[in-house]
Amino acid sequence: MSAKALYAGNPDQWPIYRKTLAAAFSRAGITVALCNQVSDPTDVDYIIYAPNADLSDFTPFTKLKAVLSLWAGVESFQDNATLTAPLARMVDQGLSVGMAEWVLGHTMRYHLGMDTHLFGQDGIWRNGIAPPLARDRTVGILGLGELGQVAGQYLNTAGFNVCGWSRRQKTIEGIDCYSDEAGLKTVLNQSEILILLLPLTRDTENILNAARLAQLPKGAFLINPGRGPLIDDDALLAALATGQIAHATLDVFRLEPLPINHAYWAHPNVTVTPHIASETRAETASDTIALNIKNGETGAPFAYLVDRERGY
Amino acid sequence: MSAKALYAGNPDQWPIYRKTLAAAFSRAGITVALCNQVSDPTDVDYIIYAPNADLSDFTPFTKLKAVLSLWAGVESFQDNATLTAPLARMVDQGLSVGMAEWVLGHTMRYHLGMDTHLFGQDGIWRNGIAPPLARDRTVGILGLGELGQVAGQYLNTAGFNVCGWSRRQKTIEGIDCYSDEAGLKTVLNQSEILILLLPLTRDTENILNAARLAQLPKGAFLINPGRGPLIDDDALLAALATGQIAHATLDVFRLEPLPINHAYWAHPNVTVTPHIASETRAETASDTIALNIKNGETGAPFAYLVDRERGY
Repeated sequence: MSAKALYAGNPDQWPIYRKTLAAAFSRAGITVALCNQVSDPTDVDYIIYAPNADLSDFTPFTKLKAVLSLWAGVESFQDNATLTAPLARMVDQGLSVGMAEWVLGHTMRYHLGMDTHLFGQDGIWRNGIAPPLARDRTVGILGLGELGQVAGQYLNTAGFNVCGWSRRQKTIEGIDCYSDEAGLKTVLNQSEILILLLPLTRDTENILNAARLAQLPKGAFLINPGRGPLIDDDALLAALATGQIAHATLDVFRLEPLPINHAYWAHPNVTVTPHIASETRAETASDTIALNIKNGETGAPFAYLVDRERGY
Repeated sequence: MSAKALYAGNPDQWPIYRKTLAAAFSRAGITVALCNQVSDPTDVDYIIYAPNADLSDFTPFTKLKAVLSLWAGVESFQDNATLTAPLARMVDQGLSVGMAEWVLGHTMRYHLGMDTHLFGQDGIWRNGIAPPLARDRTVGILGLGELGQVAGQYLNTAGFNVCGWSRRQKTIEGIDCYSDEAGLKTVLNQSEILILLLPLTRDTENILNAARLAQLPKGAFLINPGRGPLIDDDALLAALATGQIAHATLDVFRLEPLPINHAYWAHPNVTVTPHIASETRAETASDTIALNIKNGETGAPFAYLVDRERGY
């Protein structure tokens, strides 16, 4: 008897996932009946889920073994009281590698001072002093989960000194790891470029407030591909006004798409990117889904389970 | 008796080099009398040279053991008939690492399609399809000397498929190496992003002509931190006009500073940077100079000697 899985992700992507999931199930050696609609919800073993589907009431799915998220961040639906089945986050190699590439590229933009030239095509030959080498530059990362870890390793390989902070103390090759409030100050104090890759929880909302922005070196650069509410937006605008923060690249916002009249769009020292730092890639994500269905069917523990108390 | 060395580089940098060279001589355990002017040219053993000094006649320096270039590229003075002493190129770890960082940054800019957002801060949320991962992108490098090799390894470490071409066949970890005319075509055919790091010689002048530009994939990106005359400028402008080349980042030019009325400055698909891709860093460069003076004084062969026939 084969497992029954319901695809409840972005309907536009069903034609893609229908193929990549079938291929992944075959690679994993499992038989799964996959559909994007069901007549009998009590018959469904697994829901492959993203909150841009129109499913929000999980109550009818009485036999559900697990909800397998297509998104890495689950804060927008993990509090859904009808979602009582085990919930697994997406951990996708394509997602973490894509994120690491995006972080590396935007870090290099700041490191090299590329904007001087990209926005200075006026015939003036601005050959100033060479920037320091990456080995003389420290980049800090708040959040050392899968995404922060891979991004940190890319940066370290490109030569940067990398330090990082996470709630629980970690040990990661190539990254000076810190935890707790004192560790956060240590990381902020030395980060010429700061990258936010924390999950959004009650504890991390507004973690980058006025006091913590003031702990960065004067003229630091900020890159936020994590979650919008990690930043106190008013505090950031104030820090940009004084030059405490030289420039910020923001990929995520409290409200998305970022409204056209938001101060960030027109700010000369802010780059808005439209939540593109990384996207789940269907091929690699399908392998993660297949792995977890195989786990469920063979009685192995699910991978990447969300701790509902902790929130990620 | 100590060796006598004359600093004949950029006069503005003498206060820096005076210190970094002294420190490097001390690290190398050698005694060198260093000055930036001499009363008796027949007394000079080594000239530490860059062509932006006002020295062009080497005839009076009758006892010269070697000319030690502060520049990696020697084509502007290696044909000087009065320069009969052995001539060594600069090979500087700061230079090659700085170049690799610049190449990586500008490659990431093209890879991620950063310009869509940097130049699109108009309130429109342009979240299109994610770019391919670096592992699905091929970058080609023409020139696999010290600079091309280190740049290639940085790109490979960041995940790109890297292929490269050099006059003589090489074997370099992480780079698919080609040589000869057929190999050049193979590299051009697959390079979505092409980087020029060849030395300028009679053979490489205008190497990127109309025929070779046509061998690149349609819409390729070009990055030239090597030497300006490697490119046939008219052919490049024509290839930009048809979209054969989507965009070019040019750091070096036939005439520098690039004249304010040159077509490149105003071209929407060209970024001009002012010969900054890499600069010799005084500290690391001084170690290379010290190494070669030590070689000369101990009877060891000079490192990095220019083959005057080959031109580099």
